[in-house]
Amino acid sequence: MHAEIIAVGTELLAPNKLDTNSLYLARRLSERGILLVRKSIVGDDRELLADEIRRSRDASEVVILTGGLGPTLDDLTREAASDATGRVLNLSQAIVKEIEERFRKFNRPMAEVNKRQAYVLEGAEILHNPRGTAPGQWLEDKHGILILLPGPPRELEPMFEVACLPLLDRNAPPFRFHTLTLRVAGIGESDVDQRISAIYSAETRVATTILSAPGDIQIHLRAQADDQDEARLIATALGSAIREELGEAVYSTDGRSLDLTVASLLRARGIKLAVAESFTGGLLSTRLTDASGSSEFFAGGIVSYGDAAKRDWLGIDGELLGRSGAVSSEAAAAMAEAARHRAAEVLGDSAIGVSTTGFAGPTGGNQQDPVGTAYFGIADDAGTRVHRRQMGGGRRRVRVLGVQTALDLLRRRVLRLPGS
Amino acid sequence: MHAEIIAVGTELLAPNKLDTNSLYLARRLSERGILLVRKSIVGDDRELLADEIRRSRDASEVVILTGGLGPTLDDLTREAASDATGRVLNLSQAIVKEIEERFRKFNRPMAEVNKRQAYVLEGAEILHNPRGTAPGQWLEDKHGILILLPGPPRELEPMFEVACLPLLDRNAPPFRFHTLTLRVAGIGESDVDQRISAIYSAETRVATTILSAPGDIQIHLRAQADDQDEARLIATALGSAIREELGEAVYSTDGRSLDLTVASLLRARGIKLAVAESFTGGLLSTRLTDASGSSEFFAGGIVSYGDAAKRDWLGIDGELLGRSGAVSSEAAAAMAEAARHRAAEVLGDSAIGVSTTGFAGPTGGNQQDPVGTAYFGIADDAGTRVHRRQMGGGRRRVRVLGVQTALDLLRRRVLRLPGS
Repeated sequence: MHAEIIAVGTELLAPNKLDTNSLYLARRLSERGILLVRKSIVGDDRELLADEIRRSRDASEVVILTGGLGPTLDDLTREAASDATGRVLNLSQAIVKEIEERFRKFNRPMAEVNKRQAYVLEGAEILHNPRGTAPGQWLEDKHGILILLPGPPRELEPMFEVACLPLLDRNAPPFRFHTLTLRVAGIGESDVDQRISAIYSAETRVATTILSAPGDIQIHLRAQADDQDEARLIATALGSAIREELGEAVYSTDGRSLDLTVASLLRARGIKLAVAESFTGGLLSTRLTDASGSSEFFAGGIVSYGDAAKRDWLGIDGELLGRSGAVSSEAAAAMAEAARHRAAEVLGDSAIGVSTTGFAGPTGGNQQDPVGTAYFGIADDAGTRVHRRQMGGGRRRVRVLGVQTALDLLRRRVLRLPGS
Repeated sequence: MHAEIIAVGTELLAPNKLDTNSLYLARRLSERGILLVRKSIVGDDRELLADEIRRSRDASEVVILTGGLGPTLDDLTREAASDATGRVLNLSQAIVKEIEERFRKFNRPMAEVNKRQAYVLEGAEILHNPRGTAPGQWLEDKHGILILLPGPPRELEPMFEVACLPLLDRNAPPFRFHTLTLRVAGIGESDVDQRISAIYSAETRVATTILSAPGDIQIHLRAQADDQDEARLIATALGSAIREELGEAVYSTDGRSLDLTVASLLRARGIKLAVAESFTGGLLSTRLTDASGSSEFFAGGIVSYGDAAKRDWLGIDGELLGRSGAVSSEAAAAMAEAARHRAAEVLGDSAIGVSTTGFAGPTGGNQQDPVGTAYFGIADDAGTRVHRRQMGGGRRRVRVLGVQTALDLLRRRVLRLPGS
């Protein structure tokens, strides 16, 4: 079965915009053995878009449109699909009700223009959108399958998972791929590749892709075989071999992010923590509270950005700050201990204190500790440890990498705690 | 003049590959006032590709192909271009010599297959490739301009700069576009559209696009005229009319983000602040410290995630929390006042205190304040104000939208402060 993806929106033709929805869709299609043969990006032009749909449907059995389903007048996907298929658009009172409901729930008046989103292609199934007002549509006729999806990834992805995949599986050939993702922290991409390239290159039945983000490497294994079980066995065996080589640096084998890994580790062991952040500016607390239920292990955080906050909010000795500087091993240790102390106040119980202090740039730094240098403190029952790291890149990257480093150091520390 | 870009290569249809050449080309085209109307990505299939070229040439005056010019048998751009234009491919002895030369220079034997790169469309100009063996081609005929470029960016970009731009400038009209971006916070996308659609629809010389992110709407205006000055005047006039209608909700007219807008407002007026966050978990502090120099106005933040931290770190009355709950107008007011008090400790001076407390979900909430409800407190010299908002979407969206709302409320408050 062949598929094409059409991304709709004039903004996607700008010099700074990429259509990333198609990456997600390409992966999902490929897992089902559906071959993506063409992608295109078309502006908000009804005639051009209708042409594009007609032509894609002539060539391929599955055509997916993303975007252009919103309420405004430049959202023209519905109209273009109607032109291309010769099917009228009918107003669905059920969808109008749902949209009205949504606005009522948020206590906002519904502008009349929102009703544009309630028009459905004759014969199409409605794909429910739990995260927005624009529903998707699924049309199956003698020309094949035509799928209309909203543009925002947070609406598109759950809709595709919940509403499209089951419909697609009805049509697609049996699944004979298995994918496995290992995630790695604390070592660099070239180190990872150097250590594992001989291992994955020898396994020709698996396509291995290494993706790298600051402080976070993903190793995607995609095994192909005659049946599903065999594909799973092949992927799992290669995953184990890679894991053996990389050891503790592999933090998850189910695609789970580092913050969720740390969260479940802390929850499982009944460990609580508080943080004192400087150069990461609140991002470490943000990551720790990304998932629901984080109050179980997260006592709170103090963003002591300047020296005064370090002194007055955390009780760090002003003399220490004067002597060693706020970006120093001594300051990191004192901040971690203060966080630990503050957590105990709140919890009436012992906890881990984690601190970050560094030069995020572009200004700051000195001969010994240039921009990109950071110190991370971890204080627990067994004492306080400080780790120094030198990071490259701009301010944003240094902050993101700093948080990733703090989470990884915390993870490795918790794995070593006695009695756990 | 209209242009289309066709990226060639099966590898560009994989779940981890994006066509980034088109971003560079889009920028270069737009600078010359050439409108990019469509992009597509086609695999290494001669027939599909020939079809794509034919169709793009029918629709647009400039068609650029990237990739598929290499020596191997799956490099089919030359052949497909020949099929689409009905022009034969002639072997250029000059290019053969150049390729042989290149191999000799690197002391490598030349495989016969490399001669494939020396075939040139009848009537096309050769575009020299200083960084690789595959030359580009430029064909200009009654159907328009067809450009064949190599895929690797390091070969494509210098070739386009040196060989294509002068040829393009011969054909393209003088630059005559002006773009303007208004950014809006505090009102929804459909409200914005309802209020301004009559204004922008009446101005047919401007292409208006509305982009929406949680709590952040961008209105892109792209004016077209006979000359640059006129285009700027048209865009500016429409921008002013829209701004008049939306008033204070327009927070920037130079594309600047809300956090940077708030930062420069605080800095300009010499106002400092501290924050106490609950459901936003540190993200408000993170946004406020995203840019360098934020210590000028940001005293620090306290992430008082649980009730205990609100009580022990901020000094919020336990009875108040018990009576009204942590997600309440009373708690938001007390948190903002505590942040203000804490800031004064650090600064020895008055400051604004900002607080967030809410139900980010998916659990929590009650009849009166369901998931998505949040209270925002702002405490300053003139007293304390609390704003309630009901937000939709998942946990991540509620948190992002909550931070955006807090920043916008702070911005509007600062604009109203006396003496400023």
